[in-house]
Amino acid sequence: METRILLDLFIIFAAAKLAGEIFHRLKQPAVVGEILVGILLGPHLLGLISDSHTLSVFAEIGIIFLLFAVGLETRATDMFRVGRVALAVAVAGVLLPFGMGLAFMLGLGGQLVTALFVATALVATSVGITARVLADLGQTASRPARIILGAAVIDDILGLIVLAIVSGMSAGNFSTWHIGLVIIEAIAFTVFVLFVGRHAAHRLSAHLYKLRISNPAFVVSVALCLGLSAVANYIGLAAIVGAFLAGMAFAETQEAAHIRRSLDPVYDLLVPIFFVIMGTQVNLHSFANTFIIMLGLVITILAIIGKLVGCGLAALELGKREALAIGIGMIPRGEVGLVVAAIGLSRGIIGNDIYGVVVFMCILTTLITPPLLRMALKRLSSI
Amino acid sequence: METRILLDLFIIFAAAKLAGEIFHRLKQPAVVGEILVGILLGPHLLGLISDSHTLSVFAEIGIIFLLFAVGLETRATDMFRVGRVALAVAVAGVLLPFGMGLAFMLGLGGQLVTALFVATALVATSVGITARVLADLGQTASRPARIILGAAVIDDILGLIVLAIVSGMSAGNFSTWHIGLVIIEAIAFTVFVLFVGRHAAHRLSAHLYKLRISNPAFVVSVALCLGLSAVANYIGLAAIVGAFLAGMAFAETQEAAHIRRSLDPVYDLLVPIFFVIMGTQVNLHSFANTFIIMLGLVITILAIIGKLVGCGLAALELGKREALAIGIGMIPRGEVGLVVAAIGLSRGIIGNDIYGVVVFMCILTTLITPPLLRMALKRLSSI
Repeated sequence: METRILLDLFIIFAAAKLAGEIFHRLKQPAVVGEILVGILLGPHLLGLISDSHTLSVFAEIGIIFLLFAVGLETRATDMFRVGRVALAVAVAGVLLPFGMGLAFMLGLGGQLVTALFVATALVATSVGITARVLADLGQTASRPARIILGAAVIDDILGLIVLAIVSGMSAGNFSTWHIGLVIIEAIAFTVFVLFVGRHAAHRLSAHLYKLRISNPAFVVSVALCLGLSAVANYIGLAAIVGAFLAGMAFAETQEAAHIRRSLDPVYDLLVPIFFVIMGTQVNLHSFANTFIIMLGLVITILAIIGKLVGCGLAALELGKREALAIGIGMIPRGEVGLVVAAIGLSRGIIGNDIYGVVVFMCILTTLITPPLLRMALKRLSSI
Repeated sequence: METRILLDLFIIFAAAKLAGEIFHRLKQPAVVGEILVGILLGPHLLGLISDSHTLSVFAEIGIIFLLFAVGLETRATDMFRVGRVALAVAVAGVLLPFGMGLAFMLGLGGQLVTALFVATALVATSVGITARVLADLGQTASRPARIILGAAVIDDILGLIVLAIVSGMSAGNFSTWHIGLVIIEAIAFTVFVLFVGRHAAHRLSAHLYKLRISNPAFVVSVALCLGLSAVANYIGLAAIVGAFLAGMAFAETQEAAHIRRSLDPVYDLLVPIFFVIMGTQVNLHSFANTFIIMLGLVITILAIIGKLVGCGLAALELGKREALAIGIGMIPRGEVGLVVAAIGLSRGIIGNDIYGVVVFMCILTTLITPPLLRMALKRLSSI
């Protein structure tokens, strides 16, 4: 038994929870506290957490369970129901930030793959932050709320498809033939799991009660999650795409709520480890460089403008004020952006400083959204 | 992201649950199925699971949560209550198998440390198997049942203290001074956690509702579990001693049942991984050797006689039939025996063949107990 890994896990877990508690009390998202505590404890500052391979595996398992949980709350029928406006908001909110990020990074003279990774990290809205603010204001059922949540879910899926394509391309082969293959693979895998998988999960869940093992719905869905993650990885997509789709396959079964409840403690254990480890990989010293600070600010501004303008214009038919609220609600980037950056970092496609820039953007967009959204929604309801 | 570790985890998890399901239906303990599937899939037979460092870390975290869960169900006041007979049963059931195992292994010409590890693996009764049989017969509240369960809990603690001492000794230093130090450390750590820790956990649990993080009782108790495991390891005891004591500290708080419920999914995920990995380390080929088969049989017979005679004699005042039932109920060895063997193996103190012998003993004692105990209890209630 190694003392080091136990001590690392204890420090990470205790620090993550302490930071979460403090940030809750400051009415800020716990995830920001977890990332910041990782930056503080990591090898570049205090050096209390070692940079070990085993810890990175724990973090990877953490993201897999995170995306599995997000998938479990993503109902395909809800998505189809929110309709045309939400779809337009989602698509515009993916295309504009992606295009702006790509053009800017290429304009700076960056490599194509690096630019693609940064652009992809700008794509997906973090549903969690926005949902929390909406719930705090008791507005989850309002029209802008339903559009924001529907669009955020669609753009998670689009974001994962973009990630699947970009990470497939980054595996080394850039021929048109290969890019085409990855796109087909990504779409085929998604469609297969969403249609065949959902149907199979639905039929399966009616028979789960026959199993004698404890907690059969949880066990079977987790096995599917691990299996599809391994398959996604094997065919060159990101493992989290498999985990997310496994969650979606079970999202509409009668067991979904039960699986989610069983997942909660696992989530509470593993997910904060992921965010702390994400933090440990940020080297604050790279922000001593004015260029990196400027880059961080510009990328953050692009991330904000991309969603505000893209989503706002797509929702303009609902009126300026509501369009503004929707645009603001789509600003925060979180899990998926961080995961994209982490995959880029682990493959050597983006360096430590670009990684830091993406984390900086995720933190900043997450911090500014709650107050802005609160203002916009209050102005809207006071009409 | 490595495909290999995800694939390994998927194979291990799915195979463990499949084996668990089959063994449930055969009315056999799931844990035996998990070990056997590990032997089958491991590097010595099918080779479907790689022998990786990362997997062994997952297995270690698995045992830590296993012993934490056992500790959570071990109430110190219950132990004090079952009284003199249970204590006598426990102590006799520890001393006799330990003495017989030690004498036999030394008589065979084995090294002192190896003999100590084998003897220690013979010590602790697996509460789980016996509790399950008693529950199946609706006899959990009967006098022999209460004595068996009380004694099994006490001998878990004695077993962990013996393990703490033996593993401290095996760390290399054999001077009387060093052995004395380890004994004092083990006892001081146990007493400190059981008295100060229980008291602190009790007071703490009244304030947990003030925390804003989700599931505070679970989070705080898991943090204590990881922390005490790291401390136990650091001072030269086995990490599981810390995990078990952390569980015991919370066992009598009002949050215990809630923590146990949150722990269930984590347990369902991690603990089978531990038993499968334990199985992968058994090399069936070493049983091609007649000496090893004979050794396995003799050790198993010693394990059975040690408990039957030791515990039976200690309970003789309750009548022969009840004493026999109690002796039988104490036979199965499981978690703690396997953990002792695994620690011995990982430190190079016992070889692959002796490890296989211990696993063989654990499986055999676990398989024979349910039918024997059922017979003995039925004879007893038919008087």
